[in-house]
Amino acid sequence: MIGRLNHVAIVVPDLAAATAVYRDTLGATVSPEEDQPEHGVRTVFIELPNTKVELLGVLGDNSPIAAFLERNPSGGIHHICYEVPDIMEARDQLTKEGARVLGDGEPKIGAHGKPVLFLHPKDFCGTLVELEEA
Amino acid sequence: MIGRLNHVAIVVPDLAAATAVYRDTLGATVSPEEDQPEHGVRTVFIELPNTKVELLGVLGDNSPIAAFLERNPSGGIHHICYEVPDIMEARDQLTKEGARVLGDGEPKIGAHGKPVLFLHPKDFCGTLVELEEA
Repeated sequence: MIGRLNHVAIVVPDLAAATAVYRDTLGATVSPEEDQPEHGVRTVFIELPNTKVELLGVLGDNSPIAAFLERNPSGGIHHICYEVPDIMEARDQLTKEGARVLGDGEPKIGAHGKPVLFLHPKDFCGTLVELEEA
Repeated sequence: MIGRLNHVAIVVPDLAAATAVYRDTLGATVSPEEDQPEHGVRTVFIELPNTKVELLGVLGDNSPIAAFLERNPSGGIHHICYEVPDIMEARDQLTKEGARVLGDGEPKIGAHGKPVLFLHPKDFCGTLVELEEA
C-alpha cells in the first residue's frame, strides 16, 4: 500500500532559526517560508535529493502543533508521511483492519494541495502517520 | 553538506508486532530481523521506493534505546539519518560552527557497515541527527 516517503515533519519553536540550521549549518536547499492558515502552521521545506523534510512553525492562536511544542520546547519530529496511490482505498482497507483514522475520517487537502489523512499513533508504533495521495 | 535522507529510525517495544504492522497493514516490503549486538539493537528495515525506515528493538541489557522506550512506551521516531559524502569533513565543519557531536567525536561503524556520527538534538531542532558517509 505505502509508496514513497513523502516527507518527515519536524515541529520547531523558531522557524527562521531552524531554517538557518538546515541551510547554513547542514548546507541543504530550503524553500521560502509559506503560511498555511487553514492548517495553523507556517512551513519550510528542506529539499533533499530523494525526499523532503518539512519544518513546521506555529501560525495563529489555534495551531494544532502548539501542544506538541509545549511538550517538546526544543522541537522534535512530529510525523512521517507516506504516499499512497488512492487515499480512499487506503482508508477503507486500513479501517477494515482496525486502524484508526484521526478526525472525521474524511481526507483533507494537505500542505501540497493533495488529499491527506492522519492515522492514530497508537496503531502505528507510537508515530503519527500521514498518508498523502501521490 | 547533507545529501539523501538515508533512513528514519523508529524505536518500537515489540519488533515482531511493528514489522507486522508495516508488512501486513501498510503493505510495505520488510527485511528479516537482524541482531546488532555492538549497537544493542535488533533491526528491521522497511524498504520504500526512495528511502528506508529502520525499526529498532531492544537487544540485551544495556541497549541505548531502553531509556527512550521508558519515556515512550508505545515507541516513537528516534532519529533521522542524512548521508554526507565525507564524514570527517562534515564533523570538522560542524564542530567549527559550534555544533556538538555526541560521544567522543570519532565516527563509529553503523548498522550499514559505514562510518556514522550522531549530532546533539539541541543543536538540530530537537531531533537526534545521524550522519552516515554515503
